[in-house]
Amino acid sequence: MAAPGKRSVSFLGPVASYTHQATRQVFSEDEWDFRPVVTIDDVFDQVQDGQVSAGVVPFENSTNGSVVFTLDLLADREGLYPDITVDGETYVDVHHCLVGHRHMQLEEEGDGSGVRTPTASDPRPSKPRAQPVGSLKHIQRLYSHPQAFGQCNHFISTYLKGVEIFEVSSTSKAAEIVSHDTTGTWAAISSELAASVHGLSVLGRSIEDRDDNKTRFLIIGTNPSIPDDWALVRKALAEAGSKSMVSFTVPHSSPGALADVLSCFREFNLNLTSINSRPSLLAPFQYIFFIEFEGHRHDDPDGRVGGALNRISQVAESWRWLGSWKRFR
Amino acid sequence: MAAPGKRSVSFLGPVASYTHQATRQVFSEDEWDFRPVVTIDDVFDQVQDGQVSAGVVPFENSTNGSVVFTLDLLADREGLYPDITVDGETYVDVHHCLVGHRHMQLEEEGDGSGVRTPTASDPRPSKPRAQPVGSLKHIQRLYSHPQAFGQCNHFISTYLKGVEIFEVSSTSKAAEIVSHDTTGTWAAISSELAASVHGLSVLGRSIEDRDDNKTRFLIIGTNPSIPDDWALVRKALAEAGSKSMVSFTVPHSSPGALADVLSCFREFNLNLTSINSRPSLLAPFQYIFFIEFEGHRHDDPDGRVGGALNRISQVAESWRWLGSWKRFR
Repeated sequence: MAAPGKRSVSFLGPVASYTHQATRQVFSEDEWDFRPVVTIDDVFDQVQDGQVSAGVVPFENSTNGSVVFTLDLLADREGLYPDITVDGETYVDVHHCLVGHRHMQLEEEGDGSGVRTPTASDPRPSKPRAQPVGSLKHIQRLYSHPQAFGQCNHFISTYLKGVEIFEVSSTSKAAEIVSHDTTGTWAAISSELAASVHGLSVLGRSIEDRDDNKTRFLIIGTNPSIPDDWALVRKALAEAGSKSMVSFTVPHSSPGALADVLSCFREFNLNLTSINSRPSLLAPFQYIFFIEFEGHRHDDPDGRVGGALNRISQVAESWRWLGSWKRFR
Repeated sequence: MAAPGKRSVSFLGPVASYTHQATRQVFSEDEWDFRPVVTIDDVFDQVQDGQVSAGVVPFENSTNGSVVFTLDLLADREGLYPDITVDGETYVDVHHCLVGHRHMQLEEEGDGSGVRTPTASDPRPSKPRAQPVGSLKHIQRLYSHPQAFGQCNHFISTYLKGVEIFEVSSTSKAAEIVSHDTTGTWAAISSELAASVHGLSVLGRSIEDRDDNKTRFLIIGTNPSIPDDWALVRKALAEAGSKSMVSFTVPHSSPGALADVLSCFREFNLNLTSINSRPSLLAPFQYIFFIEFEGHRHDDPDGRVGGALNRISQVAESWRWLGSWKRFR
């Protein structure tokens, strides 16, 4: 931590991504050099290699669930990231916009049917929360990240019926692609920041299905034992407890072992806050599990976290402490 | 079950999909009318409405993990599928092919570099298991389902560098799209069956990264209390125990409740075989959990399953038994 000059933080870019917003919530650009990178893998690589002091990656969205790419990197099946720990988390309210080029001649024609087509599975479809800004009849292509499509179903099925869908790597990449459109018929779902960066018009605001759409981001680093001095805002905020994450596998020959590991947390009265699993890739339908629980490995006055980790080491086939961090209100 | 004539089974199509293969493993076409449908939702709709007696849907792949669309339908947040239960499972070995049109003039030029580009995260990339059949230099577009792309990384990054990727709804849909290509430059990742159905050439066989790539499919129905007489092969096979699935939510104000529910299985010595979670969509970062465990609700001589379900009803906020089924070797 004694390196001269600014330290660096890498995050899933491009500029104006939601991960960029998350990074701005936690790190000050006065003190940190911001490095947008292309993939979540790149963030992990740069943190592990020591090119940067911290990284920010998406972990889960309140509508769509876990980001499996991040879980797979935390699983670290090939041992590429031995030093990486989770050192913090932050939440971003996700408000998607429809962005593109306005169609001037159609501007007067209203905003589409405003009605979703009833289907067998959804005979009385709910209305979308937002209305378009002007006509969308000129839109023939829609670009975005798969997660964003999943979060804007009502708007798309009401106002963009029959439009061709193109899945790309990020919402800000989608806005960039649409900025190169010469036909005026392409649109993207992205943040308002991305629209402004790429010179696009906002054709609809807050088009997400739910008004409580949030994404949780993890801050990763390689200095788990050092007090987290990166937290821009921590001085101003009250602590709201701690969280830790572990991954583990269980012996295939003893399927009861999963319950054994889970009972370690109960034995030490540690609340579980999330469970995820991914294929172990050692054999079909064996898993690596991820547990988050309340408690901090390095701030553990009654020894409950240490006790639980010790028990896990006895019953799991393999396990890894992935980090502990303070939560802030 | 007294309906005259053939009963029907719907499955995620189109014809020649991997789900079609799964359906053929369990149901006899002599006795059942096979109905391919467009989405997993359609399978659930037709089973719930009684249009068909059974449905077959993908549940998890040994490389890519869970199929979240199926989990979300089993979550049944809007109460559309009150009568649906899981009545069985079957596994399909997944062997992907690269299919398209051969390029005759390039046929002599060999099969690409055969070398993957090293990256920071993968400095010594492993070689793909399969080689192309002839040259792939003419391929400019590649269509497939996102899960299939995820299972063929090595082959794609070795032999199809820089090819444009198009994600579509199924591997057999991808083959169908490529069959309409007039440029000869499009290819799909699909099954060999789909290639033959759509009159395409096989440009590579078994191009998946792992030779133990399997998908598990669930058989759903609405007759959980009736003996499962649909099993084509059960007479010839030895039973290998039973499995059950439940979903549940826990009170938000009592985060220890998750451990309480999990300990119900341990208390009755029931082995957990899988855990999944999806957003509850009731509030951000609350979840609906899915547990599979060994045991059968209607074949429960020592009352352990009944005991555990009774305990779950006391500690979960809400819960649902989703089905029990026999496993066969």
